[in-house]
Amino acid sequence: MSAIPPETARVITLTTDFGGGSPYVAAMKGVVLSRNPQATLIDITHDIPPQDIRQGALVLAEATRRFPPESIHVAVVDPGVGTPRQVVYARFGQHHFIAPDNGLLDRLAAQQPPDKIIALTNPQYWLPDVSATFHGRDIMAPVAAALSLGTDPDQLGTPQQTLVRLDWPEVHIVPGEITGSVEAIDSFGNLITNISQTALADCPRDESVRVCCDEHETYGIFQTYGDQPELTLIALVGSSGKLELAIVNDSAQMMLGVAVGAPVTVTW
Amino acid sequence: MSAIPPETARVITLTTDFGGGSPYVAAMKGVVLSRNPQATLIDITHDIPPQDIRQGALVLAEATRRFPPESIHVAVVDPGVGTPRQVVYARFGQHHFIAPDNGLLDRLAAQQPPDKIIALTNPQYWLPDVSATFHGRDIMAPVAAALSLGTDPDQLGTPQQTLVRLDWPEVHIVPGEITGSVEAIDSFGNLITNISQTALADCPRDESVRVCCDEHETYGIFQTYGDQPELTLIALVGSSGKLELAIVNDSAQMMLGVAVGAPVTVTW
Amino acid sequence: MSAIPPETARVITLTTDFGGGSPYVAAMKGVVLSRNPQATLIDITHDIPPQDIRQGALVLAEATRRFPPESIHVAVVDPGVGTPRQVVYARFGQHHFIAPDNGLLDRLAAQQPPDKIIALTNPQYWLPDVSATFHGRDIMAPVAAALSLGTDPDQLGTPQQTLVRLDWPEVHIVPGEITGSVEAIDSFGNLITNISQTALADCPRDESVRVCCDEHETYGIFQTYGDQPELTLIALVGSSGKLELAIVNDSAQMMLGVAVGAPVTVTW
Repeated sequence: MSAIPPETARVITLTTDFGGGSPYVAAMKGVVLSRNPQATLIDITHDIPPQDIRQGALVLAEATRRFPPESIHVAVVDPGVGTPRQVVYARFGQHHFIAPDNGLLDRLAAQQPPDKIIALTNPQYWLPDVSATFHGRDIMAPVAAALSLGTDPDQLGTPQQTLVRLDWPEVHIVPGEITGSVEAIDSFGNLITNISQTALADCPRDESVRVCCDEHETYGIFQTYGDQPELTLIALVGSSGKLELAIVNDSAQMMLGVAVGAPVTVTW
Repeated sequence: MSAIPPETARVITLTTDFGGGSPYVAAMKGVVLSRNPQATLIDITHDIPPQDIRQGALVLAEATRRFPPESIHVAVVDPGVGTPRQVVYARFGQHHFIAPDNGLLDRLAAQQPPDKIIALTNPQYWLPDVSATFHGRDIMAPVAAALSLGTDPDQLGTPQQTLVRLDWPEVHIVPGEITGSVEAIDSFGNLITNISQTALADCPRDESVRVCCDEHETYGIFQTYGDQPELTLIALVGSSGKLELAIVNDSAQMMLGVAVGAPVTVTW
Repeated sequence: MSAIPPETARVITLTTDFGGGSPYVAAMKGVVLSRNPQATLIDITHDIPPQDIRQGALVLAEATRRFPPESIHVAVVDPGVGTPRQVVYARFGQHHFIAPDNGLLDRLAAQQPPDKIIALTNPQYWLPDVSATFHGRDIMAPVAAALSLGTDPDQLGTPQQTLVRLDWPEVHIVPGEITGSVEAIDSFGNLITNISQTALADCPRDESVRVCCDEHETYGIFQTYGDQPELTLIALVGSSGKLELAIVNDSAQMMLGVAVGAPVTVTW
């Protein structure tokens, strides 16, 4: 028996590339509330760039772990909607995910193997009429509502062994040098790299460290933005535990013209 | 007796042109929660283009039908606020609407006649001080709260026979040709036309069909976006049951430079 | 004893400069719901311009007063995060605020002195690991959850006598002339001035009044937008009780190219 106890399953989060103001999000919420009026619906973000599965995967892995155990997380970045790509239920620890199996769960799977994967093949839990272009509304939303009402995930379809995985830019560590790249850019324009606090274990934090991104450079790894004067380029370990490049009180993305994928080097 | 049973009336949706980040939306939510702390407030969208009653009318008709029976839908696209235009309560089936009577309920009224219309003339349910510029906060929000607490709509004011209606571009169907136009553009840049699935009943779906929008053309009507390679212009019937033109994994609006109102022709 | 009775403390509002689609907002919500699953989370806005403490202060003072008594308002516009600036709890009447002490509560303090100020120095109510860059998630969110569960504010840290205050542009009133400035611009592009209804007490409303903003001028102070034809520059007292300049059915910000701080003069 692996159903979620209904009394604990009030939180259903939504992560999509629909755009913050999209009525498509509202349609999903309407479907959930029609089936479980007690659900607590929380938007993680709807501003994943359209079809950008990688950004969706990063956001899911970072934001969902702050939510209560037994939360249900629905993620829709689904360029392959209506094609033979599968839609799945996956459990990671005490968190439940519903998503297309297109790599969107990859950063979660990189942290820990899923405890269960079920391909959502049982139409009993879907809307009666399933469109070919909006499985978020027609399959994922009603399945999330069913889970929140205590449906056993095993009822949702057939077990599946693995999830689709993605290749990611690697971080190279040699004595005195770490090479990585910009992985995401937040709403402040801060450049978040794929270089983790762990990778920086042997790296000093003082001004003997040089951090480069594209042709820009800065010295030292600081604690927080306010440690340097306004408009300074600064390196620090951000709130998600990754090396970050920021312009104090401004947007590094705008001022440096840097995009996701830009190379980042730390040398000392 | 036509009051909403309070135990079923928890969902109040909001649709406005205030912009997603507007504190005006929060002011409305604060007013509702001050009067009914049990209300479940759901944003349909606040990104209706400013003063665009038509886009508001389309979104209301499409998004609200996904919500549970006895939901209360508050819609504020209200360029005439404070002028003699009326604010009304209207019931369509098991859904309750509060909106300025300026055409915002027109697409709902086109689907089915309203079961009841009440002009909101009874100030007993309003805020004590009503501004001339924000009836969403001062009249509509407190009236929605009152309805959700079981107030009979008949108490809200005086019965009214009809709603303000709008003229819309028409769809012309002759053997072998359907002529319509782009009605809305979604957050992916997909061009949603006013040509419904029903209008397409006699139209084949194979490559003998030519779909034109402005000077752009494509052949065939497909099931879903992934049926064609990336960056292809594709026609399909979208999740709202209307013919849609899309660029696979990109924005048709941006790539084609097409706006609402652009002519669309289907020939075979 | 000054704890909030838990049964009344369901509403927690959020006001930040994170951007509407930011997963940082979701992280804060996840932390609150992990500790109090019964909390009702309401977004006031996340579109405060980055690091713009003044706009945050204005929005907080205006939007929060519409919320129920015993609401908890969390505000994060925090360029000094991780530096020695304090994070505080402040009570104004029956409303509870948690914010960095950087001026963000200034417009509230201008309306009425705070009834209580507590510096949040007791780590017992924080997340176990506090980052240097995201106190909204690591300190303010868990403290808000604790308050909503009935924790006495006095437990949160040490009493503090005053809040950081800001200087603001002044309004000058002489017989026949009021001089002020544009204080905020709303999502419609309406220019909201710092000239209150009270300041306008002796000013007539007819066409003998001249209202200037930068090099633009208009005559008369009207009731509402619809009082003048489309695309007219119009002055009126808006829904927050302040003199406002608007272009009927368009954006005054865009059409006039006016920014926050622009001088406004009313003469008669």
